[in-house]
Amino acid sequence: MPKRVYAFSEGNAKMKDLLGGKGANLAEMTNLGIPVPPGFTITTEACAAYAQDKKLPAGLLEEVEKFLKRLEKEMGKKLGDADNPLLVSVRSGAASSMPGMMDTVLNLGMNDESVLGLIAASGNERFAYDVYRRFIQMFGNVVLGVSHDEFEAEIEKMKHTRNVKNDVDLDAEDLKELVMNFKKVVRKTIGRDFPQNPLQQLELAIKAVFESWNNPRAIYYRQMNKLKGMLGTAVNVQAMVFGNLGNDSGTGVAFTRDPGTGEKRFFGEYLMNAQGEDVVAGIRTPLTISHLKKENPRVYSELEAIYKRVEKHYADMQDMEFTIEGGKLFLLQTRNGKRTAKAAVRIAVELVKEKMISEKEAVLRIDAYALDQLLHPTLDPKAKKVVIAKGLPASPGAACGTVVFTADEAEKQGKAGKSVILVRKETSPEDIHGMNQAKGILTARGGMTSHAAVVARGMGKCCVAGAEMIQVDSQKKQMKIGTKIIREGEVITLDGGTGEVILGKIATIEPKLDKDFAQLMKWADKYRKLKVRANADTPHDAAFARSFGAEGIGLTRTEHMFFQPKRIMAVREMIVAETEEARRKALAKLLPYQRDDFYAIFKAMKGLPVTVRLLDPPLHEFLPSEEKEIKALAKDLNITEEKLRSRMAMLHEVNPMMGLRGARLMVTYPEIVEMQARAIFEAAVKLKKEKVDVIPEVMIPLIGFMEEYYFLAEIVRKVAGEIIQKSGVQLKYAVGTMIEIPRACIRARKIARKAEFFSFGTNDLTQLTFGFSRDDAPKFVPTYIERGILESDPFSTLDQRGVGALIKMGIEKGRKDRKDLKCGICGEHGGDPASVEFCHRVGMNYVSCSPFRVPVARLAAAQAALREK
Amino acid sequence: MPKRVYAFSEGNAKMKDLLGGKGANLAEMTNLGIPVPPGFTITTEACAAYAQDKKLPAGLLEEVEKFLKRLEKEMGKKLGDADNPLLVSVRSGAASSMPGMMDTVLNLGMNDESVLGLIAASGNERFAYDVYRRFIQMFGNVVLGVSHDEFEAEIEKMKHTRNVKNDVDLDAEDLKELVMNFKKVVRKTIGRDFPQNPLQQLELAIKAVFESWNNPRAIYYRQMNKLKGMLGTAVNVQAMVFGNLGNDSGTGVAFTRDPGTGEKRFFGEYLMNAQGEDVVAGIRTPLTISHLKKENPRVYSELEAIYKRVEKHYADMQDMEFTIEGGKLFLLQTRNGKRTAKAAVRIAVELVKEKMISEKEAVLRIDAYALDQLLHPTLDPKAKKVVIAKGLPASPGAACGTVVFTADEAEKQGKAGKSVILVRKETSPEDIHGMNQAKGILTARGGMTSHAAVVARGMGKCCVAGAEMIQVDSQKKQMKIGTKIIREGEVITLDGGTGEVILGKIATIEPKLDKDFAQLMKWADKYRKLKVRANADTPHDAAFARSFGAEGIGLTRTEHMFFQPKRIMAVREMIVAETEEARRKALAKLLPYQRDDFYAIFKAMKGLPVTVRLLDPPLHEFLPSEEKEIKALAKDLNITEEKLRSRMAMLHEVNPMMGLRGARLMVTYPEIVEMQARAIFEAAVKLKKEKVDVIPEVMIPLIGFMEEYYFLAEIVRKVAGEIIQKSGVQLKYAVGTMIEIPRACIRARKIARKAEFFSFGTNDLTQLTFGFSRDDAPKFVPTYIERGILESDPFSTLDQRGVGALIKMGIEKGRKDRKDLKCGICGEHGGDPASVEFCHRVGMNYVSCSPFRVPVARLAAAQAALREK
Repeated sequence: MPKRVYAFSEGNAKMKDLLGGKGANLAEMTNLGIPVPPGFTITTEACAAYAQDKKLPAGLLEEVEKFLKRLEKEMGKKLGDADNPLLVSVRSGAASSMPGMMDTVLNLGMNDESVLGLIAASGNERFAYDVYRRFIQMFGNVVLGVSHDEFEAEIEKMKHTRNVKNDVDLDAEDLKELVMNFKKVVRKTIGRDFPQNPLQQLELAIKAVFESWNNPRAIYYRQMNKLKGMLGTAVNVQAMVFGNLGNDSGTGVAFTRDPGTGEKRFFGEYLMNAQGEDVVAGIRTPLTISHLKKENPRVYSELEAIYKRVEKHYADMQDMEFTIEGGKLFLLQTRNGKRTAKAAVRIAVELVKEKMISEKEAVLRIDAYALDQLLHPTLDPKAKKVVIAKGLPASPGAACGTVVFTADEAEKQGKAGKSVILVRKETSPEDIHGMNQAKGILTARGGMTSHAAVVARGMGKCCVAGAEMIQVDSQKKQMKIGTKIIREGEVITLDGGTGEVILGKIATIEPKLDKDFAQLMKWADKYRKLKVRANADTPHDAAFARSFGAEGIGLTRTEHMFFQPKRIMAVREMIVAETEEARRKALAKLLPYQRDDFYAIFKAMKGLPVTVRLLDPPLHEFLPSEEKEIKALAKDLNITEEKLRSRMAMLHEVNPMMGLRGARLMVTYPEIVEMQARAIFEAAVKLKKEKVDVIPEVMIPLIGFMEEYYFLAEIVRKVAGEIIQKSGVQLKYAVGTMIEIPRACIRARKIARKAEFFSFGTNDLTQLTFGFSRDDAPKFVPTYIERGILESDPFSTLDQRGVGALIKMGIEKGRKDRKDLKCGICGEHGGDPASVEFCHRVGMNYVSCSPFRVPVARLAAAQAALREK
Repeated sequence: MPKRVYAFSEGNAKMKDLLGGKGANLAEMTNLGIPVPPGFTITTEACAAYAQDKKLPAGLLEEVEKFLKRLEKEMGKKLGDADNPLLVSVRSGAASSMPGMMDTVLNLGMNDESVLGLIAASGNERFAYDVYRRFIQMFGNVVLGVSHDEFEAEIEKMKHTRNVKNDVDLDAEDLKELVMNFKKVVRKTIGRDFPQNPLQQLELAIKAVFESWNNPRAIYYRQMNKLKGMLGTAVNVQAMVFGNLGNDSGTGVAFTRDPGTGEKRFFGEYLMNAQGEDVVAGIRTPLTISHLKKENPRVYSELEAIYKRVEKHYADMQDMEFTIEGGKLFLLQTRNGKRTAKAAVRIAVELVKEKMISEKEAVLRIDAYALDQLLHPTLDPKAKKVVIAKGLPASPGAACGTVVFTADEAEKQGKAGKSVILVRKETSPEDIHGMNQAKGILTARGGMTSHAAVVARGMGKCCVAGAEMIQVDSQKKQMKIGTKIIREGEVITLDGGTGEVILGKIATIEPKLDKDFAQLMKWADKYRKLKVRANADTPHDAAFARSFGAEGIGLTRTEHMFFQPKRIMAVREMIVAETEEARRKALAKLLPYQRDDFYAIFKAMKGLPVTVRLLDPPLHEFLPSEEKEIKALAKDLNITEEKLRSRMAMLHEVNPMMGLRGARLMVTYPEIVEMQARAIFEAAVKLKKEKVDVIPEVMIPLIGFMEEYYFLAEIVRKVAGEIIQKSGVQLKYAVGTMIEIPRACIRARKIARKAEFFSFGTNDLTQLTFGFSRDDAPKFVPTYIERGILESDPFSTLDQRGVGALIKMGIEKGRKDRKDLKCGICGEHGGDPASVEFCHRVGMNYVSCSPFRVPVARLAAAQAALREK
């Protein structure tokens, strides 16, 4: 006959198949010398035998009784005892976790005698009867099959009779009567009395747990989760301990390090003569663990010793639950503790120093998503707040300021040193100057990749987007939320981490990147294979990205440079031009500005590559939309209003995302490419002459055909060749394309013949692969997620099965005839850890993301490389 | 030494490699007994030898002279003769045609003596000097390398001196002087005299033609067209014949059958004592060929004999050019004659009857593109016309009527029996009722797949779209073209075949589908494998399509049914509904209408499958856009104008093509699917009870994910199941999806698990694969075609490399786990012959196109099947 019962001290962590996960862990802790409440485990083999024979294996009960005796001896208590009764829990526990799928019975051993023993031991009659009635209820339901509702009805009846509202208002007498009523319910339902014999209780409970292995929901759960090859569930019988048995009892939680800061200090709270639920309910205020040192130095030092042992054993910060029963310490649970991003970094770095984990483990320990917290100011979690609206957490961080409703006002007040929040129905490129000066941006429309969201993330600025309940009236300079009106000048706070819009000023906590963070990043850089670049449109952003570890610029959007007041007029002049000659004249005015822009960015990134994307958006984005502005513009441009309007009408598009922009604009007006190429290469040559190393990469957006790309790339190379030759300097440069049109992925092989790099523009590629307009998708994507059709917003996390398949195809085809084709990503996904992992897997050379996301991407890239092995 | 020169009588059609295409054909004609002007061919091997050794092969000139002697004898003329000189042409001709890439010299043999001979022979001094000066010019340029401009300058100078405007105004004396001046030019430029010796002329010309094989443009042409493995060019030396050497000379063209009607009768025109160019120039009016019978019965009967011989030999109607020189007939050329579509059908069918070609050949002979002509009225080609504007030939046919500027007016006048042309800036679904009643549609905006174009083609109605020069002012009820104003009530004519807008009424010719056409279609049906269905939204269209041979409906757009005045109100009620309940109430009003629609369509198509597409367009398409209408609607719906406007603002989309429509709309409001499914199956069940066989196929549009499709298909099947079960009838139906989102092609395998058919919606698939909004693409696609980036508009002819690759992927993946997945196409491309061929090749089961295109598709499908073998 095989051994079918194991004391916790007889097992270990490796015996999961036989003892189940819970049993093996309890054994492991016991062997570590951690005082877990003692007990024993009935093997999964016994469960299998039960399932086969429909009865407990012969001799099992005798074996259980033997171990029970040992348990009683160890605890100095006896099951069903009228003086100091032992109570046990009977819990299921399979090799793989199946949370909530199988049965559990607590407080087993309660009966009419032991309830008196519990009163004696605790001096608390109400507590004892409460435990008793809970036991009848649980055992009655799980083991005897009495409906939960029957018991609840009794409780309701009792509360009604006593005229009280809550369970806790029932006193000891009430509960005593309730126990009697519960017993009547059992008798009425199953036709026999509630079993008073604790051994019989135990036998029935064991059988019930075994039965639950094959209940329909457990079977379904195993099928769903493809859990195969398990014998059955083990059964853990463990002594119950109580922290409310007098003043030498108590309960608490302790962390081996500070979960908020990561500091290596014993940290926690406890309450004497209390149960865990008292702490949770907040009825009494717990004391800090250091107080225990004074109150009970023996238990404290015991706890401290345990803390060192478990942390060393699990090689991570532990979160421990403990109970003191009659002066004796029991650990109920220890697990890896939750922590803030800041603490996670510090703990990981210090664990390496303490030689508990390796550098690689440290890198893998940090949640790349959580890292984002560290890089932005956050709201003081202790502050009280009145949330007036909620939108999408479009760009993390927190910001507080007075509300303004126009970009001009934001710019004016911002420059005057005021903290302002720019509130718009939605933003457009014309709002950039205001966004630049605002502390935070709030929009009523648009999703995670709306203009506001993308630009704000790029600026590392807090943004709450698509707060649909807000009605913005920029004319009246106010917004309405329900009946509440907030006017220009009132103060609000935005939480970019949660999407909350909060009334008034809330204190924020500035991020501080300490040496631990720097150390972690150093390790990440050591192991990652993907390069990390940043998307940056200004020298300031470029320098900032570099300080965050960017190894180049993956995307410089030239059009953002067009919006400064001096330049926009030349741009508009170009747009209304009716002849190539007039267009060239206007472009000539833009040339020096663009050249200066590129000069400054190249200089900031000296020695590193800078990818400049040629003009991408449709021209109408550069034209004003308001009546007054149109009139003024016509005057400034010295043309009739009618002519301006007719030109604007001509530029109007039904689906601007798929209209005349990017490559199409440049094929139509090649003089635009010429000017931009000239600006890029004149700037580069100038720096070369000043002995500054520059590596320009010219990127042509929105390419769908090889012929289109060849046509434009040829123009760029021609201009570059002329300028470089004339200058006499040596300058290496690259010409490549943004892959963002599905057709480009399909035809990548041909395109790559003349492209030195591919940068996947996953924003547009996602739009076209799904047929989802990112501006309009917020109308239906939430419903899709709700109905389980989409797992997440494809504009936040790359859709690997659809868009990803096209990217993979693009890379493979592109490298067919050009093995060294450099591939990267410059969409919003470049800073999303799961997407970064994908980029690593498909063999990209780099990812490019907003400057604030650079550390996130560096870490995610390292994790991807480490996980691969 | 190999034979390097072949008389025409020595070769045949198979000797293309050695004699070049032209040489082989001249030999073939000669052997057929057709009197082509005699001559000989110098082989491509000789050219290869010349290219290698940089000189003519030894003995070649002697061989040439030998053949020249024979030629002189045969023609009874001598090269350079002062009485009756022989002139020859020296032409290049490689195995594959390289038109215009290599050199040709005409009139070789002219010199100071033979010009006198030519005067003597022709009695026309001016003619002789004109031939001489042309020869010097051509030979001088091609052989001697004198710039064309130098000669042109002399002509200009002469015209200036003589104070005349045109070359033809120069008389014999002038031309004589010009010959002298040309000779001076040659002497000045090359430092020697123009060669007078005809044999030297010939040697130089042969060398020049050989040289031209390796000129840069010829090399480039061969590279571009991937022409490999050719030795070189052959040289054809052929006697020149002249139709203007007196009254027993003449020239003409003849067709072996009537190219307009296909009637089997000898057909043509001729002029005596004239050159071909006289006929072309229209200076003299040619006579019909029957007149020749009287004028010269011998030549006529000779011609007639030749006509029978060549038609039999080439097994097709021939277009022959002939010249009579001194009473002797020469055929200069015979080739398959161009013909109208009508003639093509009749000729092909009659050739089969005459056992000249097989049925398969007959099917392959007809240009499927041209067939379209037959199916629509056309303008009388003889009518005089004033073209006032030109747009895109968006839907073929011709229409004439008074101009109206609103759909309501079109409906009113149309119903009153008037012929009207509806003129709109662009059309929207709200114009359908007016389009229905109009004879033709003219728009100022939009491309080949704009709303107007698609709907008009669907209705088989003439449409000219995107006539950008027209300014439509529907308020003032007028349009402006430049300074010309056309007001409501004036008459215009549209030519949908050319895109011309013509002032006033032009007579039209109605199409007549005769028995030849029916015979041809019968043969096509015999050989094709693809089924052909039609896109039809009304019982009328369905019946019409069936009469054109449609084997089912591939696309019924349910939304077109929503626009009738009674229904639109319920639709609008549904749109503004704020609760599911209110929405269901409005939908319940629509149910009976939809059920009746489906009932009638199913009935019209009894026994054939009908694919019903569930609601596809965005909701805002159903709302009015004009101020007045909005006010009226608010009143009708009994809601405030503010509320209506706010709902409309909510529905506004930035890129409606990629917004809340199709599947997305139905996932958001599943009650819409429920209502439509109910209407479909209640109609089907009703017909079943009436013993009418119906095969409904429910198509869910705009699917991108399997989860989305499963969700909606489940609703359809549930409703269907309930209705069928309740009715007690047996009804087979299918549920499938429209594949029009790139992602659906990538994930087709999963989607197909629960889809019984895929219908490729190539309009939207093209939009998304290219990122081209079809409404906006007309702004740049013409430039793309102009710059050679695009070969054709991808909305007219399927882009096989990009969109086609996705379709292929979709079919292959879809059939992986469902071998019998039915695949079809229902985009505009379903009626485009090249696209139909693609559909056949990738293994589709059917194509669906507008009713008028059904015969085109039937023919194209047969041709695809036949060509495959």
